[in-house]
Amino acid sequence: MHRPTMHDVAAAAGVSQAVVSLVLNGNHAGRASERTAERVRAAAQELGYRTNLQAKSLKTGVAEILGLVGDEVATSPFSGMMIKGAQDRAWQDHHALLTIDTGGDDRLEAAAIDTMLSHRVRGIVYTAMYHREVHVPDAALDTRAVCLNARDLDERVPSVIPDEVTGGYEATKVLLEAGHTRIGIITIHDALPAAVGRLEGYRRALAEAGIAEDPDLVRPGTGMQSDGDRQTRALLALPEPPTAIFCQNDRTALGAYQTLTAEGLRVPEAMSIVGFDDQDVLRDFFLPPLTTVQLPFAAMGSLAAELLLSGETAPEVHRIRCPLVLRDSVAPPKGS
Amino acid sequence: MHRPTMHDVAAAAGVSQAVVSLVLNGNHAGRASERTAERVRAAAQELGYRTNLQAKSLKTGVAEILGLVGDEVATSPFSGMMIKGAQDRAWQDHHALLTIDTGGDDRLEAAAIDTMLSHRVRGIVYTAMYHREVHVPDAALDTRAVCLNARDLDERVPSVIPDEVTGGYEATKVLLEAGHTRIGIITIHDALPAAVGRLEGYRRALAEAGIAEDPDLVRPGTGMQSDGDRQTRALLALPEPPTAIFCQNDRTALGAYQTLTAEGLRVPEAMSIVGFDDQDVLRDFFLPPLTTVQLPFAAMGSLAAELLLSGETAPEVHRIRCPLVLRDSVAPPKGS
Repeated sequence: MHRPTMHDVAAAAGVSQAVVSLVLNGNHAGRASERTAERVRAAAQELGYRTNLQAKSLKTGVAEILGLVGDEVATSPFSGMMIKGAQDRAWQDHHALLTIDTGGDDRLEAAAIDTMLSHRVRGIVYTAMYHREVHVPDAALDTRAVCLNARDLDERVPSVIPDEVTGGYEATKVLLEAGHTRIGIITIHDALPAAVGRLEGYRRALAEAGIAEDPDLVRPGTGMQSDGDRQTRALLALPEPPTAIFCQNDRTALGAYQTLTAEGLRVPEAMSIVGFDDQDVLRDFFLPPLTTVQLPFAAMGSLAAELLLSGETAPEVHRIRCPLVLRDSVAPPKGS
Repeated sequence: MHRPTMHDVAAAAGVSQAVVSLVLNGNHAGRASERTAERVRAAAQELGYRTNLQAKSLKTGVAEILGLVGDEVATSPFSGMMIKGAQDRAWQDHHALLTIDTGGDDRLEAAAIDTMLSHRVRGIVYTAMYHREVHVPDAALDTRAVCLNARDLDERVPSVIPDEVTGGYEATKVLLEAGHTRIGIITIHDALPAAVGRLEGYRRALAEAGIAEDPDLVRPGTGMQSDGDRQTRALLALPEPPTAIFCQNDRTALGAYQTLTAEGLRVPEAMSIVGFDDQDVLRDFFLPPLTTVQLPFAAMGSLAAELLLSGETAPEVHRIRCPLVLRDSVAPPKGS
């Protein structure tokens, strides 16, 4: 009897393999209804399909390979969990993930792709350290390709990106629900999809709550701690300061914490703060722990590998939900 | 005319390619005399050899490949610069570095190595995220192998590791030279080569200065910030507290800073601190900036690739110097 595959589960549940992957990895929120998720789980159970890598009898011996071409994904401290997600998913189907970083150099990238093709990879994950828009090199289309943390501007291959808008929306919403109505936002680099999407989410949440946007509360930054510092001071100096700040990344939030501490203002009693990214390496530095929005790197990497393995080639943009991580930096506004 | 290679420079200077690599990358201190270094530089200049990857006319097209098998090297935020160093060196000789992380799972490791062998890698860099002692799997010996940030316990292949002892020695020495005679040390996980080596360096420096070791000043930790916190308190509570502390990693130093700040004691006026690792992601959190010892990840990775490319198979242990990075956390003891 053949061991049930994700394909079998998808067929039994009447959904795509991508949806099966999302559901079984617990990342379907916003991408599949709870009813669909139930159907997938039932099918998986009935067929005896198991996702746990360790629980499966992995064959040793030569694996097929998937390639991952990154700019600095493997060598920077930021987004290694994308590699882990892709790799874990690849191993589940007995594929090894071969990673090459190119440092963003076009010639190295061309050589990396040529080399992968010559080794007959089953597909290439084309990845960026920071979420951005890209042109996938033609050579990569000689095999299957998927963009990861990058959106294919030419719409030739599937793209897997974080759902920045919904993330920004939820970050703002948690503040609204705590009772805040004057909510500042400190943005990151203007040109980045992350900045644009997270701001759109902020605006959507405010509009939904019937709150008019106050341009004074929207402060530009570049993603550095010093921006959080500087713009928090600017917000505090307003005639009517906000009672909460949504920082578009954790590093900016760290600057905000610092300024507030220096001013003798406590988080969250005097000011609520929400961040974005949920960066591992920064987590310990927030006192109280920061409520933030997680970049779902592992789930994104997993789906990218999944798409290659399943042969899904439609140039769809897969937006993966960024889960809100509730910690201790949000409270009702003072005097409410 | 053929483009000069590192091999040509080595031949002209009468040294190994490993030495050429170290000298031209500025990492020869402690491993080659300044006279040898001069000879290498002169040979490189005479032959017109250039190390700068970007300045060279790299061929595009299919590259040969080197494999790098890591536990969590590519997916953790800690040691990505080893991959970068190995990769940059590999590209210089038109080799792509293919990285596979195994998460420490033996079966995945076996599959990763089999897969690399089937793709005819020119050699395998066998790498650990944290410096440790390993048994290289037999399969890896079907091609060339080199241990990186790991020491081959069976002495079958070359190993490239940080020179922990000299690092610990220099960390202590900089405190001695500032005039300190009571120097505390907070260690990290006892079983690690890093902990053992750094402690040995501390003892060597004290012995050389004719200072008897005071066991009260040697405090065990596990590498966590909380150890730095707790053991700094313990040191401050001694009848005769130290005037300086060597923390065996930066994270521990961060805990020390925190406690000192809480006690109203300034670094370095009231207490000098030296760390170890020079971790990127922590650097911004030290005020004043921390004097520390750098783990030479890029140089180590570069040498590992170099050894594979040059075919150097002697099971020698290459200890790479950990450079002292002078910043602002060391001053003479109070009242001196």
